[in-house]
Amino acid sequence: MISKKMQAILLDSGATFYQDALDVATLYESHPLDHALLILLRTRYSKVPVLNDCEQLVGLIGIVDILNLAVDIEGLKPEKLKQRQVWEVMETDYPKVLLGEPLEKIFHLLVDQNFLAVVDEFGYFLGIITRKSVLKSVNHLLHTVEKTYDLQAK
Amino acid sequence: MISKKMQAILLDSGATFYQDALDVATLYESHPLDHALLILLRTRYSKVPVLNDCEQLVGLIGIVDILNLAVDIEGLKPEKLKQRQVWEVMETDYPKVLLGEPLEKIFHLLVDQNFLAVVDEFGYFLGIITRKSVLKSVNHLLHTVEKTYDLQAK
Repeated sequence: MISKKMQAILLDSGATFYQDALDVATLYESHPLDHALLILLRTRYSKVPVLNDCEQLVGLIGIVDILNLAVDIEGLKPEKLKQRQVWEVMETDYPKVLLGEPLEKIFHLLVDQNFLAVVDEFGYFLGIITRKSVLKSVNHLLHTVEKTYDLQAK
Repeated sequence: MISKKMQAILLDSGATFYQDALDVATLYESHPLDHALLILLRTRYSKVPVLNDCEQLVGLIGIVDILNLAVDIEGLKPEKLKQRQVWEVMETDYPKVLLGEPLEKIFHLLVDQNFLAVVDEFGYFLGIITRKSVLKSVNHLLHTVEKTYDLQAK
């Protein structure tokens, strides 16, 4: 278990760890892949959440996933992306979290993920938790813990 | 300043925060861009360090940097990558750290970077520090701090 006192300081930094869906670049599962690639290049994100028409989270897609479909032994063939759609190459095996999930779980999952997608109980996409937001809060903790507590060696 | 007691626990987890150059995918500044792109796709890294022929760090290059050179209004034109080299599009304005740099600086820089390149005083590339390694160590800290210290509110 994460120390409760540490958790209180982490949450106290004002960080919600949470970036609202309205501020997150996403793609739809029916997006054509050539178009999806251009959007990813423009936003400069290497991976983004994928939604269905109801705004439910259905996957993640990255530039590498798309390009690997377009590469053969002779090099990159962008024409292979035409008539193919996001759902065909998106990742469907990835961790997601509910709003208000324990920090324990969030910190554990972020060791291996650049960001975590947040959904509600019906799978609707609510936003993301990034390593950036968590590291900001950790910096706050490391700088302030001894202002809040006396640490006596046991 | 980061609390010294926190720093001791972070370093105590056995983490050096440091992945040796031998275990890091890199590209050379004279690599042709079409070849560089294929290597990045194969390794699935979105960005890697760039070295010169003397193994000194000279930049970082990402898939997005390469592809943005190949994109025009009609889409992706991979033929634009032929006869172009890594040094032409690599990022040259990026933070790097020396071996043994204070955690203060490392944690601060990792808020905005996925990894930090580590060099010696002559600019030779030694390895990288990743967010993953730092977050592992933070998890250790959050779980063990109250086993090591009594925290008395001030």
